[in-house]
Amino acid sequence: MIAEILATGDEIRSGALIDSNSAYIAERLEEIGIPVTRHSCVGDDFETLVSILKEISTRVDICVATGGLGPTADDLSSEAAASAAGETLVVDAKALSDIETFFRLRKREMAASNRKQAMLPRTAETMYNPIGTAPGFSLKIGTCLFFFLPGVPHEMKRMLSHAVLPRISKMPGALKEHCLVRNISTFGLTESATGEKVAELVNDFPDVKIGLRAKFPEIHVKLYLNGQDLPTMQTRLALATEWIFKRLGRHVLSLKGASMQTVVGDLLRERAATLAVAESCTGGRIANWLTDVPGSSDYFLFSGVSYSNLAKTKILGVAPDLLKKYGAVHEETAKAMSEGARLVSGATYAISTTGIAGPTGGSDDKPVGTVCIGLATPEKSEGKRFYFPFGQRSMNKSIFGIAALNMLRKELLGR
Amino acid sequence: MIAEILATGDEIRSGALIDSNSAYIAERLEEIGIPVTRHSCVGDDFETLVSILKEISTRVDICVATGGLGPTADDLSSEAAASAAGETLVVDAKALSDIETFFRLRKREMAASNRKQAMLPRTAETMYNPIGTAPGFSLKIGTCLFFFLPGVPHEMKRMLSHAVLPRISKMPGALKEHCLVRNISTFGLTESATGEKVAELVNDFPDVKIGLRAKFPEIHVKLYLNGQDLPTMQTRLALATEWIFKRLGRHVLSLKGASMQTVVGDLLRERAATLAVAESCTGGRIANWLTDVPGSSDYFLFSGVSYSNLAKTKILGVAPDLLKKYGAVHEETAKAMSEGARLVSGATYAISTTGIAGPTGGSDDKPVGTVCIGLATPEKSEGKRFYFPFGQRSMNKSIFGIAALNMLRKELLGR
Repeated sequence: MIAEILATGDEIRSGALIDSNSAYIAERLEEIGIPVTRHSCVGDDFETLVSILKEISTRVDICVATGGLGPTADDLSSEAAASAAGETLVVDAKALSDIETFFRLRKREMAASNRKQAMLPRTAETMYNPIGTAPGFSLKIGTCLFFFLPGVPHEMKRMLSHAVLPRISKMPGALKEHCLVRNISTFGLTESATGEKVAELVNDFPDVKIGLRAKFPEIHVKLYLNGQDLPTMQTRLALATEWIFKRLGRHVLSLKGASMQTVVGDLLRERAATLAVAESCTGGRIANWLTDVPGSSDYFLFSGVSYSNLAKTKILGVAPDLLKKYGAVHEETAKAMSEGARLVSGATYAISTTGIAGPTGGSDDKPVGTVCIGLATPEKSEGKRFYFPFGQRSMNKSIFGIAALNMLRKELLGR
Repeated sequence: MIAEILATGDEIRSGALIDSNSAYIAERLEEIGIPVTRHSCVGDDFETLVSILKEISTRVDICVATGGLGPTADDLSSEAAASAAGETLVVDAKALSDIETFFRLRKREMAASNRKQAMLPRTAETMYNPIGTAPGFSLKIGTCLFFFLPGVPHEMKRMLSHAVLPRISKMPGALKEHCLVRNISTFGLTESATGEKVAELVNDFPDVKIGLRAKFPEIHVKLYLNGQDLPTMQTRLALATEWIFKRLGRHVLSLKGASMQTVVGDLLRERAATLAVAESCTGGRIANWLTDVPGSSDYFLFSGVSYSNLAKTKILGVAPDLLKKYGAVHEETAKAMSEGARLVSGATYAISTTGIAGPTGGSDDKPVGTVCIGLATPEKSEGKRFYFPFGQRSMNKSIFGIAALNMLRKELLGR
């Protein structure tokens, strides 16, 4: 049993919107052992939609389609699906009452256009949507079972896990194969260098498929294993994971694919330690990453985000003489910033960044991409200079930020 | 002349990586008047690649493909393209010497696998890559001209604008049509409500196509106009833009599609004013947004990111009694935080956020999604409470942050 994914909508076709739904759906389908062979995207054009639905129905057993279920005139999924299946549209009374309830509960008026969302192909099975107005539906077109889901990501995700995946798992022919996936997050090597280091895995583990994912600035190594004998597969995957860990060593962040901020957060929590940050060139990105992790209030105390020298001296207590002597971008300044952040917040550890993210502000001496990172611990403090040749402001903010977290990670691991 | 886009790679097919390249390419092609009819994605499988290349070659005149040009064994674009065109692979001496130079300049050793990247189909025209190791190439398969670009976004973007788009613009049949695009960013209405307000544009402007793009928490309204008479088109588009501006009024952030942080930054710069932020529940997201804008050091002075009461009292000078009386999430606390951030930094304006982003920490009285926002100006300070029913931590951080920036925007505009 194989599947395809279809994203519809002019905003995706024209590039106004990046399609993140298809990747999410592919990952969930592969996890339950359904290989995804192709993704497609077309715009809101009735004839095109009907034609691609028919085309897909001849290639695969399952298709998950997103978008086109909204209330506006260019939302055509329901009509196109009915046409491809040779059916008429009828009102789904339960879907209509759900939409009415949705608006009543939120004390908002229901627009006349929302009524259209309850018009579904005659033999469709409705999937109700407790968190949005668009119901989804499944429909057989030829021998292929299509699932039509809303394009709004959190509505799509809920419907996928509550209605679509359970239904697929129960289909005859499904789940004869298990698929195990292991995601190993790494930092510090380029994608090519990582690829070469792990290329020989195939010699010892011809049954394990390997994939690299550049999730800048992290590189994730994914191991995939398909088969029928689950216990053996689990043993093989554990051995392959160990093989990778030996090869990549200190570059491995997590054998469970956790991000740098999650790994650092867990290390701090294990030690009952707390963290403060002083951010100049990263501009709040480190704090934003750290606080994206639920429960980060256990260890994250404070970040002082400041471009100006005034804030560096007044809030972090960096000596004006030191700033004058070394300038804003310097190891000694970074060191003093981390000391200041640690003192003012009472945190166990503090890290700091000061550098040149670009596009302007670089010099021959300190080109764009230069960053000084400070680390203060209960025992010592230090400042280090790095240069990253990426050139783009947003990439620089990310690489500066992850380098600072990595300096703390190494300290916590005693490396 | 119409185009398709092809993304290749198991990491995209399996959903490990979200494909942002296709959207970027679609947008650039449509801007030079080349309609994009379909995007597809397949994995690193030789037969599948050859087959989809042949399929696309029968449907369109131009195809831009990304991925599969790397040094590893699963990088198959060159081989598959040669096979689909019925050609052999040959070494491109200039490409090889470029790759060697790339490594020499960076003082890194060139891996043997990188040599493979210089093997290209015999009639291919090479597009050199000054910022990465993978050269791109163009190749005719049947009547369709394919452009094969690296999958790494910044390498792809550079090659697209330096080599691909200029080449397409010079092709016979190209650019007979102009395409004008206008992106209007808005905030404060749902996508449905925005859609209904602008639906009647078609009555007055049947020649203008309209699309909505939910770029959470902003909604962007895009106007597209195709035609041959550029001056008339420009007038029509200006009139349509005015029509939208009248309909959406105060919800319009920018008639040039600028983000909230850019709009607020420009308003501050025009007034020679500066800004400080005190972030509790937004955890640095506001500072990170503000500092993503190049030149933000003109107006952004400081953000104090703090979950703990200690930091609120010690760094922002919020009175402990006030915190004790009202609690951390309260209008009065938000107000005091903004006053403190303004005082400590010397900024003209300050905004603050304190709330419950979730997933835990909510109560009946203050459920997840509750936020109090403070605003301090030279004349006054105030605190307001909002509730946003999104439920997800990351969405809450974003909506809290943009609501705070919007409160400042309204103040700056005197609304």
